[in-house]
Amino acid sequence: MIHKIALAGCGNVGTALLEILHEKKEELAAKYNFNYKVTFVTDLMKGTVVDPEGIDLGKLLENIRADRSFARFPQSEGTFHNLLEKSKATMLAEATPTNLKTGEPGLTHIRAALSRGISATTTNKGPVAIAYDELQKLAKDCGAKFRYEGVVMSGTPLLQMLENGLAGANVIKIEGILNGTTNFILTKMDEGMTYAAALEEATNLGYAEADPSGDVEGWDAAVKVSILAKILFGKEVPVSDIHRIGITDITPDKIAEAKEAGYRVKLIAGIKTTNNNLECYVMPKEIPLDAPLASIGGATNAVTVTTDNLGDVTLIGPGAGRKETGQALLTDLVAMA
Amino acid sequence: MIHKIALAGCGNVGTALLEILHEKKEELAAKYNFNYKVTFVTDLMKGTVVDPEGIDLGKLLENIRADRSFARFPQSEGTFHNLLEKSKATMLAEATPTNLKTGEPGLTHIRAALSRGISATTTNKGPVAIAYDELQKLAKDCGAKFRYEGVVMSGTPLLQMLENGLAGANVIKIEGILNGTTNFILTKMDEGMTYAAALEEATNLGYAEADPSGDVEGWDAAVKVSILAKILFGKEVPVSDIHRIGITDITPDKIAEAKEAGYRVKLIAGIKTTNNNLECYVMPKEIPLDAPLASIGGATNAVTVTTDNLGDVTLIGPGAGRKETGQALLTDLVAMA
Repeated sequence: MIHKIALAGCGNVGTALLEILHEKKEELAAKYNFNYKVTFVTDLMKGTVVDPEGIDLGKLLENIRADRSFARFPQSEGTFHNLLEKSKATMLAEATPTNLKTGEPGLTHIRAALSRGISATTTNKGPVAIAYDELQKLAKDCGAKFRYEGVVMSGTPLLQMLENGLAGANVIKIEGILNGTTNFILTKMDEGMTYAAALEEATNLGYAEADPSGDVEGWDAAVKVSILAKILFGKEVPVSDIHRIGITDITPDKIAEAKEAGYRVKLIAGIKTTNNNLECYVMPKEIPLDAPLASIGGATNAVTVTTDNLGDVTLIGPGAGRKETGQALLTDLVAMA
Repeated sequence: MIHKIALAGCGNVGTALLEILHEKKEELAAKYNFNYKVTFVTDLMKGTVVDPEGIDLGKLLENIRADRSFARFPQSEGTFHNLLEKSKATMLAEATPTNLKTGEPGLTHIRAALSRGISATTTNKGPVAIAYDELQKLAKDCGAKFRYEGVVMSGTPLLQMLENGLAGANVIKIEGILNGTTNFILTKMDEGMTYAAALEEATNLGYAEADPSGDVEGWDAAVKVSILAKILFGKEVPVSDIHRIGITDITPDKIAEAKEAGYRVKLIAGIKTTNNNLECYVMPKEIPLDAPLASIGGATNAVTVTTDNLGDVTLIGPGAGRKETGQALLTDLVAMA
């Protein structure tokens, strides 16, 4: 069977997915029996290309590199629904920018796919945070799959592990470093930088956005906690209900003091279960220097999952990056095949 | 569908699996749609019970606790082949003791299952080390699955992650702490104990065997490296071809010196790929104190996987333990269902 892939959103992440799909065609066929064409690519800035026979990925990637657009291809027009139909897509990879208020445009894309029985994966936190139950139900009703490995820890396969790797083990607690930008800043401050200088470096490296409040005030980590509460425990925990303290009040003095005492300050996001209640939080914590979470430097993410059968299992890996997040989409596409 | 589970080997690990299967019946049905009976349990010391209608696990566990045997049940006799047939088993969990020379009795059990189209999972390194290709081919030819999550890192789902979590990402290097006993000894020596005292404590705690050479000379880790070479790269690397240095020459002085310089001594097992060649090794290495692997204390295991698409992903978790290894069998049973 040849899967026909649609891609909505062709920024850094979407382009990285296309690169991997282009480079690893033979490997994916040999190792996973995963055969595919890309039949639909749409991006707000670059254009829209539909070809049910398969788009020439080499040419498309060349076009993106040269012009940051799909201008060398005939452009298709119409609603997303109609284009999806026309493309004969059997799978959707969704990588449009996150809007946590409306979930759009990702939500419309995913609904369109699932309602046609087309499985969908997304790296977009919006639809997952806003409409998880609705989308899972829609997927189930229409015989499709809905996956979202990339919304937490990018391509580091945390969700895959929670779903398949621990069958029958009950999660008692999950805690970790879920925001790379703040961990980068804290790592730099640990090396002696001021908060302002560390934030500036994070911005220059593209880790922090022009308005850094989403990261440094803990909103991004809180959204991920909310998503984990839903996935792991089936509970609706609005971000506003999460006990949230960012890193803006952390000073080099506090970090030095903690270090002196054998601790490192980390922004820790977590969920603890107590008597069927969830305690959800994002806050700076002092971690003993010899604990795995203390050793996580830079923009890396890490999560420790405590279960009844296994004790602690910790997963450490990249929490951002175009290639890493593109990999998350691929992991899901192969799992949905 | 109700799966019928056979269990070969009911020591600590097998009994732990039965406990989990007994306790979590409803949960596994609700969460994974995994419904089952245990219809066949055999153990060299405890006896053999077959009941195609399902053995009463509560009673069986009580019997094991009281008498370390299945004496309260009618005993079945016959070859493993015949008993398997009689039990109408649809899945085999294999947890007999490891024999690295013959692979027996596990190998016979697994062959019997797979050749009948019965999927099998094992925690026994013997059959995997000796007959991986044969068993995978047999499974494929007979429409069954062959899994072995428990042979490396017990229930910590490393193999699951390598198989499903990184589709299309190529492993360039894999390195970690694969033997809990030696890591326990090194951790104790790091705290000031002599090698002899640390080994004695490991033996008293049941980590080290009466003859500790399998652990302290690196054989156990080397077998796991050999298995990883096969699983990840499809290459036959006999244990005798692995560059292997144990921890018997490590002195408290060496450990103190390394610490002074900012390093911790760990027994590191790994595979590096270079130009399609594999470099396989088990040896003490000095790990920078702020690297995740340096923070792994006690009998814990950890592996860092370096791939082209994702950089480093590290998985840390228990590397031994009856419940943890029982969990590995369960993870595989659910995956095979």
